[in-house]
Amino acid sequence: MDKFEAERRFAESRVARLATLGLGERPHLVPITFAVAGGAIAWVVDEKPKRTKALRRLANIRANPNVSVLADRYDEDWQRLWWVRADGTAAILEGGPDRGRAVAALTAKYPQYTEQPPTGPAVLISVDRWSWWSAAPGALR
Amino acid sequence: MDKFEAERRFAESRVARLATLGLGERPHLVPITFAVAGGAIAWVVDEKPKRTKALRRLANIRANPNVSVLADRYDEDWQRLWWVRADGTAAILEGGPDRGRAVAALTAKYPQYTEQPPTGPAVLISVDRWSWWSAAPGALR
Repeated sequence: MDKFEAERRFAESRVARLATLGLGERPHLVPITFAVAGGAIAWVVDEKPKRTKALRRLANIRANPNVSVLADRYDEDWQRLWWVRADGTAAILEGGPDRGRAVAALTAKYPQYTEQPPTGPAVLISVDRWSWWSAAPGALR
Repeated sequence: MDKFEAERRFAESRVARLATLGLGERPHLVPITFAVAGGAIAWVVDEKPKRTKALRRLANIRANPNVSVLADRYDEDWQRLWWVRADGTAAILEGGPDRGRAVAALTAKYPQYTEQPPTGPAVLISVDRWSWWSAAPGALR
């Protein structure tokens, strides 16, 4: 897997996991739906029911913008395992054209957003480093 | 979803994602194969090819034992989404009976380990807090 292939697999993944830094030096983890647009990772707080309106992931990013995002593939044939990780810096956009572009990218990837567009803040992650691993380096799948 | 159901779904998941705290106040993320045994989460460094022998995840745990582990289900029907998160404290076991029990629990869950038992250190995570979310609170699947 080369960088081009790693970024392709990441961008095509339907779900990723976002790690932020929480209170008390604790990592915090949630799954996200996301899109890669203009080299950055975008996700938008949406209408999926949440445990609370004051999202920990946003509070954490405000306190420390360092984030890690992971996409992976599990298969019972462990020769088919792979993962791709993006380490980067997150910025929260409450509005404006960049938020609009993030919503458009998300909606293009997920038809689910057509019916119920996400209304919350967007988060744009500029990727400082891509890392990847594949059990079968030569295979494309 | 109640706590019992959340822990069941977590334990039955075939893969989870582990977040540790890396250098420079950065979160670090990798997927893990794992087993829940005696109320703790166990994983063992195994023979799957690694990018390096000096695993960042172990160095991170030695510096800060706070970890977060997430299992989730993605589905294009967003009514079927759920996740379960375990926040806890990790300990590294280079040997001894607790490491042996972790290997046994992993091997019972993953037949893949029967052919190639994991030979590295075990990590036992005692869970301080379970959190969970389900798009459809009433549904079991």
